[in-house]
Amino acid sequence: MKIARFSVDGLIAFGIIDDDEIVVLKGDPMFAGYDTTGQRVALRDVKLLAPVIPRSKIVGMAWSYFADEAEQAAAAHGEPQFFLKPNTSVVGPGDAIVLPVSSANVHVEGELAIVIGKIAKNVSVADAEDAIFGFTIANDVTARDLLERDGQLTRAKSFDSFCPLGPVIDTEYDWTAFTVESRINGKAFQKGTAALLKHTVAEMISFVSSVFTLLPGDVILTGAPDRSASVVHGDTVQIEVPGIGVLSNPVHRA
Amino acid sequence: MKIARFSVDGLIAFGIIDDDEIVVLKGDPMFAGYDTTGQRVALRDVKLLAPVIPRSKIVGMAWSYFADEAEQAAAAHGEPQFFLKPNTSVVGPGDAIVLPVSSANVHVEGELAIVIGKIAKNVSVADAEDAIFGFTIANDVTARDLLERDGQLTRAKSFDSFCPLGPVIDTEYDWTAFTVESRINGKAFQKGTAALLKHTVAEMISFVSSVFTLLPGDVILTGAPDRSASVVHGDTVQIEVPGIGVLSNPVHRA
Repeated sequence: MKIARFSVDGLIAFGIIDDDEIVVLKGDPMFAGYDTTGQRVALRDVKLLAPVIPRSKIVGMAWSYFADEAEQAAAAHGEPQFFLKPNTSVVGPGDAIVLPVSSANVHVEGELAIVIGKIAKNVSVADAEDAIFGFTIANDVTARDLLERDGQLTRAKSFDSFCPLGPVIDTEYDWTAFTVESRINGKAFQKGTAALLKHTVAEMISFVSSVFTLLPGDVILTGAPDRSASVVHGDTVQIEVPGIGVLSNPVHRA
Repeated sequence: MKIARFSVDGLIAFGIIDDDEIVVLKGDPMFAGYDTTGQRVALRDVKLLAPVIPRSKIVGMAWSYFADEAEQAAAAHGEPQFFLKPNTSVVGPGDAIVLPVSSANVHVEGELAIVIGKIAKNVSVADAEDAIFGFTIANDVTARDLLERDGQLTRAKSFDSFCPLGPVIDTEYDWTAFTVESRINGKAFQKGTAALLKHTVAEMISFVSSVFTLLPGDVILTGAPDRSASVVHGDTVQIEVPGIGVLSNPVHRA
């Protein structure tokens, strides 16, 4: 099932995608279930919004990919590493990624994003899947020059608009074999695949839940291979995860 | 005015401290103003809770102090640096700091904490004070061994219970000359003072608001001098900011 959040004619609601229509839900299905209002709206008439509103955490997995199969065979998986992005960095499909004046080198990265649906603390890898509400697509926008200057990931990844999410949440997505392709102005520059992740989706959830309590609406970005690309004013970034959709965002200067 | 959040006999509310009583407020004064319910409760009868519920960001300033006046005279102030703590790390006065099993070296640090009361984006240093709701006290608990292993601040500072806040918010506190003393089992180990901060409170607010939009309820921890101390099961940590109060928390193993 594909869940969208959208606005149309002053209404903001969640809904279920049904071909070219949206079946309107009474509330946020993460908390209120799937009761419908009886309305249907045409998908082409709505503006899609970020499909989840993180109220607590956006966790980004860092250095989460092996470069290739050779490195995968040779290297230890190590412990996962992560950073946090603030919820003020979230924008929706079609919203502008705004280049901050303090950075001269903003990169984009396409990632599969896990949407947490249940409170989870110290969950085992075997039980981790129970905490998942669904999957969406994220763009982990990063001011590379500030990352290098700080030596810390936080500021570089925290600017307003630096976390596009969407277009929908797929509640039945098979994460075990995902691929994600990122394009700037139609040209692919980065491709991720579950096969080269250092840690599985379930291992990521288990690990971060050993640090803090995951809450419904928390989002975990699974990371991207080390082939991010810089963007400039006027570019359009598209991130495609087959089975979920395409997250597209224009880039504007501040 | 000193604002507390508290529970008593099943009631959870905000109130204004009036000597040894609390004047009960109808809502969160940050959003609902200062209308009272007409009730008064004895301060000794309540359990104080964290006086603010961050819904978006807890920002921690890193390396924010000069070691002494000699370093202050010799060194450049540089750009502020910060990290984020998740809101799931917040506990209140008297709540346990829980030592995670994954760390063998947990440190505590006493800090003045700024509570943001208004939406603020790209505010100047001159206007930064307008964004302040008040000040409280924070303990920036850190798993030092994990910080050193990761090279990044985030995991080490993000565990549940790693951000005690309280006991109250002082809405009229003069931040320009604060001092903060931290004690373990009554013995002082760290003393901070506004005089040795690399950046003023107003400069911190202005800087972080150049990265992201500050929202009401966001908290900025102003940092601590580099004299944190490790704690073990059974310790009690007290952090005192004269004029605001004492934040006291016991330490428990997980």
